[in-house]
Amino acid sequence: MKNFISVDQLTEADIFQVLERAEYYAKKAIKLRQNRIFVANLFFEPSTRTKMSFTVAEKNLGLEVLDFHSESSSVLKGETLYDTAKTFESIGANMLVIRHRSDEWFKELKNKLQVPVINAGAGKAEHPTQCMLDLLTIYQEFSSFKGLNVVIVGDIKHSRVAKSNVNALRRLGANVFLSTAPGFEDETLDCPYLTIDQAVENCDVVMLLRIQHERHTNVAVTSNYLESYGLTKKRESKMRKNAIIMHPAPINRGIEIDTELVECSRSRIFKQMTNGVYVRMAIIQFLLEEWGITHENNFEKRKTFVAVK
Amino acid sequence: MKNFISVDQLTEADIFQVLERAEYYAKKAIKLRQNRIFVANLFFEPSTRTKMSFTVAEKNLGLEVLDFHSESSSVLKGETLYDTAKTFESIGANMLVIRHRSDEWFKELKNKLQVPVINAGAGKAEHPTQCMLDLLTIYQEFSSFKGLNVVIVGDIKHSRVAKSNVNALRRLGANVFLSTAPGFEDETLDCPYLTIDQAVENCDVVMLLRIQHERHTNVAVTSNYLESYGLTKKRESKMRKNAIIMHPAPINRGIEIDTELVECSRSRIFKQMTNGVYVRMAIIQFLLEEWGITHENNFEKRKTFVAVK
Amino acid sequence: MKNFISVDQLTEADIFQVLERAEYYAKKAIKLRQNRIFVANLFFEPSTRTKMSFTVAEKNLGLEVLDFHSESSSVLKGETLYDTAKTFESIGANMLVIRHRSDEWFKELKNKLQVPVINAGAGKAEHPTQCMLDLLTIYQEFSSFKGLNVVIVGDIKHSRVAKSNVNALRRLGANVFLSTAPGFEDETLDCPYLTIDQAVENCDVVMLLRIQHERHTNVAVTSNYLESYGLTKKRESKMRKNAIIMHPAPINRGIEIDTELVECSRSRIFKQMTNGVYVRMAIIQFLLEEWGITHENNFEKRKTFVAVK
Repeated sequence: MKNFISVDQLTEADIFQVLERAEYYAKKAIKLRQNRIFVANLFFEPSTRTKMSFTVAEKNLGLEVLDFHSESSSVLKGETLYDTAKTFESIGANMLVIRHRSDEWFKELKNKLQVPVINAGAGKAEHPTQCMLDLLTIYQEFSSFKGLNVVIVGDIKHSRVAKSNVNALRRLGANVFLSTAPGFEDETLDCPYLTIDQAVENCDVVMLLRIQHERHTNVAVTSNYLESYGLTKKRESKMRKNAIIMHPAPINRGIEIDTELVECSRSRIFKQMTNGVYVRMAIIQFLLEEWGITHENNFEKRKTFVAVK
Repeated sequence: MKNFISVDQLTEADIFQVLERAEYYAKKAIKLRQNRIFVANLFFEPSTRTKMSFTVAEKNLGLEVLDFHSESSSVLKGETLYDTAKTFESIGANMLVIRHRSDEWFKELKNKLQVPVINAGAGKAEHPTQCMLDLLTIYQEFSSFKGLNVVIVGDIKHSRVAKSNVNALRRLGANVFLSTAPGFEDETLDCPYLTIDQAVENCDVVMLLRIQHERHTNVAVTSNYLESYGLTKKRESKMRKNAIIMHPAPINRGIEIDTELVECSRSRIFKQMTNGVYVRMAIIQFLLEEWGITHENNFEKRKTFVAVK
Repeated sequence: MKNFISVDQLTEADIFQVLERAEYYAKKAIKLRQNRIFVANLFFEPSTRTKMSFTVAEKNLGLEVLDFHSESSSVLKGETLYDTAKTFESIGANMLVIRHRSDEWFKELKNKLQVPVINAGAGKAEHPTQCMLDLLTIYQEFSSFKGLNVVIVGDIKHSRVAKSNVNALRRLGANVFLSTAPGFEDETLDCPYLTIDQAVENCDVVMLLRIQHERHTNVAVTSNYLESYGLTKKRESKMRKNAIIMHPAPINRGIEIDTELVECSRSRIFKQMTNGVYVRMAIIQFLLEEWGITHENNFEKRKTFVAVK
């Protein structure tokens, strides 16, 4: 057998030889799993930053990455998220990283999988690894969250980042404010609203959000949006001495923020991306340890980590 | 030279330095090939299970995976399958795994490549690695094929799984039956037809097929398809004591099978997926040995495998 | 924490544990970078050969590949090339390989990135790694460029290959000619035009180009294109004794070239692809050395390379 084209071309002996060898591999499965830890990145929505950041984090930790492309997958044949996830578990994925347009996709999977799951984005509702990298960026800057004034600015209604961040920042002791244009408010968030001018003058962290053109239909972004609601150079000049600018990206340059501010000295926008890799490494490693998954290649051999705080 | 943007920016010395170094690598090519074995997965049709299962199998064996995306490839510029395959051979692929919509794509490649080829799906005609994993799943259960009653149920007309399985199971001594709705019969298969009720009561293996909505035009799947032709819970209760349920997936839940049966105790559906990895490892390793391709990373160093049967 | 679904599910201690561990990884970042060198392949236009050839080259050199898919990326959300490139730099890419439809995409990045950039295709203007692999193929054959007659044949107007090659070949001492059908001329190239019959009889290298159907609108490729302007078997028989045929592929079989000539003894078409891997390895390694980027996995430990010429 020089090629494997049709079972009809195999002798009966060939067939049993393949079956016996497959059985041998099946029995060695536990050893196979110790050699390699597979993480499947299941992104059902477009992503550059989050997906690539997870990929780098996984490779840095010595894990094998399974790169799923929903647009050329059996999702086209109507396969559900649950069946897709269960498929990856069945073929050997040891961890699933999932982004999906549904706000509550994880409910469909709850208590049904034998592998850890990481939420890489849930519709308009949650983006918890983004939240953690935002927290890290603030923590690096101010060493604490207590009493910090943080304003979240922009398309709050459609942002999964806003919801995660408001709750987390408040629990950690920050004062959280919102600032936006009419139509972008989110009534479910119980935070005081500021004008953009109030916001820049009184806050330590100005956290901009992307206008999510692809998610809304009836809010018009007018040509003077930047002037009326965004971060102009004039406003930046009125920010507090050590205040910083954040944005989860992708950025609509000239809409939420003046293009020249994207890399100004106050901006932590690209630093947030770098932090995303470290935060995702930490979360993945945290879960591997919780589940007792160890492997030879791991960046860190030590099995415990003592939190300093 | 800090970037490589234009040949015009290179000095003549730079050009020759690159050429000489490339020549050096060309001469080292055999050593390069021993270090890494590349397998190219060329999927011209959507796939989750088969493609990812091959990927895991390849990585488990220590091989390097080249992941081809036909939708962003030169296929868009009209490149043929043969030229694509030849390209991968030319750039260093040591094995090709191919899925293509043509029933006989492999004829175009026959005796023209210097690397082994594995059929990962050929139109409506063949899916031999699926057949082998089905055989493995049955073999694990019954330790033999002789005298087993196996029924293949559903969209037989459009199934590449059915055709491979009928021939293989018969050669191995099983009695193979078919059961389907009007319009889904395949006249090329010479097997007795059963009603679904006869099938569940008399068979050891009930192998369901997916209704392939994407391949047919004139057969309407009516709302009572499950009741009339599918595996309901009532029918499952009439199955033989040790009989098992199989399905190649993706599953149309509630059409071919009651959704609650997908993970019932008789179901081997997700086990089939796990077996897919082991069978593909076995086939790949089989071909590597046939072609005398060895490498340092290989999971198994031993060069021979004695079939037990 | 068995899964990571929402920050709301984390205790305050969990949050700080993740943050502290992320900080620990951030401080280890330099060590992480020494372990693995990441190359991001950013292809904004379809590619099989070039992208896969870079992938093989990168893996042969022991580098980690980040595979970007513009069609499922934040480019869909309007992200610019600059922001995409900066994102990859931020998450840890040590080198960027870019193909983009713009003729001058690299100007947008100039002096703004801290990592080397390789041009893998710029609109209709440049394709310098293709040029280098063409040079290597000619160099292997004739050991020199001085006095060689090279004709570039076909859709010169839309070819980024033609422009790079004309300049490079002339600088190295070759006589470069052009031959094409009316409408495919490029007025910016100052080379003598030959008829295809003059070309085959007088040249050492006949370098065919692909008719780029996807780039032009108003030039009709008539049914007798091959007869009038392409390389027929009759013309091949009139070529010089040691003359060779080249083509960057993908090939339009039967249009630029008779399909039977693609793998004739004069053809170096598939050898060009193989050479593409070696040339790209050389260019990548050249840049790694220029930037002082070293790593443990590297195919070659030696840090200097003495050009022979």
